[in-house]
Amino acid sequence: MPWKVTEEDLESIAIGAGILGTGGGGNPYLGKLRIRTLMAQGRCVEVVSVDELTDDAVVIGVGGIGAPTVGIERLPRGAEPVEAVRALEAYAGVQADALVSVEVGGSNSIVPMIVAAYTGLPVVDADGMGRAFPEVQMTTYHIYGVPPTPAVLCDAHGQVAIFDRISDPRTLERMARVVTIEMGCRGDLATPIMRAADLRRTGVLDSLSLARSVGDAVRAARRAHGDPAQAVLSVTGGLEIFRGKIVEVERRTTRGFARGRVTLTGLGPYRGASMAVDFQNENLIAWRNGQPVVTVPDLICILDMESGEPITTELLRYGYRVTVLGIPCDPKMATPQALGYVGPACFGYDVVYRPLKERLAV
Amino acid sequence: MPWKVTEEDLESIAIGAGILGTGGGGNPYLGKLRIRTLMAQGRCVEVVSVDELTDDAVVIGVGGIGAPTVGIERLPRGAEPVEAVRALEAYAGVQADALVSVEVGGSNSIVPMIVAAYTGLPVVDADGMGRAFPEVQMTTYHIYGVPPTPAVLCDAHGQVAIFDRISDPRTLERMARVVTIEMGCRGDLATPIMRAADLRRTGVLDSLSLARSVGDAVRAARRAHGDPAQAVLSVTGGLEIFRGKIVEVERRTTRGFARGRVTLTGLGPYRGASMAVDFQNENLIAWRNGQPVVTVPDLICILDMESGEPITTELLRYGYRVTVLGIPCDPKMATPQALGYVGPACFGYDVVYRPLKERLAV
Repeated sequence: MPWKVTEEDLESIAIGAGILGTGGGGNPYLGKLRIRTLMAQGRCVEVVSVDELTDDAVVIGVGGIGAPTVGIERLPRGAEPVEAVRALEAYAGVQADALVSVEVGGSNSIVPMIVAAYTGLPVVDADGMGRAFPEVQMTTYHIYGVPPTPAVLCDAHGQVAIFDRISDPRTLERMARVVTIEMGCRGDLATPIMRAADLRRTGVLDSLSLARSVGDAVRAARRAHGDPAQAVLSVTGGLEIFRGKIVEVERRTTRGFARGRVTLTGLGPYRGASMAVDFQNENLIAWRNGQPVVTVPDLICILDMESGEPITTELLRYGYRVTVLGIPCDPKMATPQALGYVGPACFGYDVVYRPLKERLAV
Repeated sequence: MPWKVTEEDLESIAIGAGILGTGGGGNPYLGKLRIRTLMAQGRCVEVVSVDELTDDAVVIGVGGIGAPTVGIERLPRGAEPVEAVRALEAYAGVQADALVSVEVGGSNSIVPMIVAAYTGLPVVDADGMGRAFPEVQMTTYHIYGVPPTPAVLCDAHGQVAIFDRISDPRTLERMARVVTIEMGCRGDLATPIMRAADLRRTGVLDSLSLARSVGDAVRAARRAHGDPAQAVLSVTGGLEIFRGKIVEVERRTTRGFARGRVTLTGLGPYRGASMAVDFQNENLIAWRNGQPVVTVPDLICILDMESGEPITTELLRYGYRVTVLGIPCDPKMATPQALGYVGPACFGYDVVYRPLKERLAV
């Protein structure tokens, strides 16, 4: 059944997508403010299941691209993603029937909603990662064969770059990234163009509903003075991998990404232990006492210990008390084919992917 | 009067454009081979004066972009510039009435002829520099207000990047350059779209004829066992600034350009003197005994001493005996407005531009 996004949904989606965004996908608070402003103007957003679309319905993906550290300082004008989608439609000579996220994440779950609010098009309850990842080619759409181009990149000044007939999604990533850097490390990218049948085959389905459920669970736990992190685990089937205090954040914005490492010292049952989490926009690998305990493509989520609020990589700072969760990735992200795009080796780690429950021998 | 390019013209243009290209603009020999092949297939190229076009005729600029060091190793497929022009026409919804060079130079005087050979469109006897320069914004078209976009970049694999509504030509340069690097440092760029009236106002006119005249003069001097360099000076009004032997070449391909310095030791009347010429694709500044004697935008041309053959920056090597000429730039390149785009400071030199005849007190 299609559902209209309410203010309550929005609160939950911002939290849930922020958590599933594993530290990235854009700042959840800013994403929420953008769509709330549009909804206050009377615009609405309808979410549909992919099964409510005909097989040949045209679905266009859209999301922000850039470094989250820049995204919180250099605010968008507002309608850039609409312009990106419209320019892609004009270039390709198609009309979108629906929009979809490329990744779950604080902002990037919201970006298609912004376009939906302006255009009246529905948003499909799906995405291309079931989490967030830093690079364009790291979507299940591309991994399972949806062509990477045409693609349109827009910035806040209305500048446009269109890519077409690009040989493979990694090349699109490199080209779009360097142009994004020239745009000031922040833009919106409209791609891919899919049929609903392709989305059904390649996408991670029902991920917007999952984000909402995660957020609902966190908010319910807060109201009941319970433990929000445990509530997240009950919905996602994840595991708690650490509780501690942030004692060091090394972060630099380089080559278009926020890269770095956060170091934690254990609290409660983890007293005496340490954890380090490396990130490139998103959390990539969690080391406990020097051993990898969770790696991409599984999710590593850092939450404020009290409120369960996701702490994205651009906001990590000394002194936060946090709970770190590991959540199994979508099965589409764990195939041998997918691991060639999103496994630890793709980020330079000489670590073999093992599902987190196997690593932790649960 | 329109003229059809003959094989004889081509020989002269390759030499003359190579000389006026001041070391860059692409390898003249390869440019000549490309168009000669097309002409051998019965295709022809017509050159028209801008005055033979109506004011509102649509003229499209097209040329190669990249590092000349790569251009001689990574050969083009052939029709890339045609695809770039056709893609630009389709995107902008216009039809070209004629083509024009963005710069004089061994290859880049030829590239519009390649498109002409395929399409039957005429080439206008003009360009946007009256020489070659390494960066997109360094054309009289842009300096005098022709909008930089839309622009289309194509590579040998058929990959396409389109730029639109880019705020200024320097930004287009940065974006097109980084994508060119991702394309392997070699592409073809179609831009700008002008009316013939704009070309007449902003362009360097009759530069293809000038290139042919320069080449004719060199070839006549060779036949007469005369001095080709002096023949070039008689046509261009330039000055000989050095004769010597190349004793050192420092050259690296970096950030999409061939950059470096060639050092000469004097011969004949210059015995005991030294010269160094810095380049970024093209020759930028000539130092004689440590003092600048010619700087951009004036032309610095390095010719083989015997044959007058231009030695482009990618082919400079130890042992060549060369004559170095300084040739005054087109007046449109020496205005205060133009010097803000092409003066020595634009290349990082703390040297004030003074016309070469003033510097050399002739």
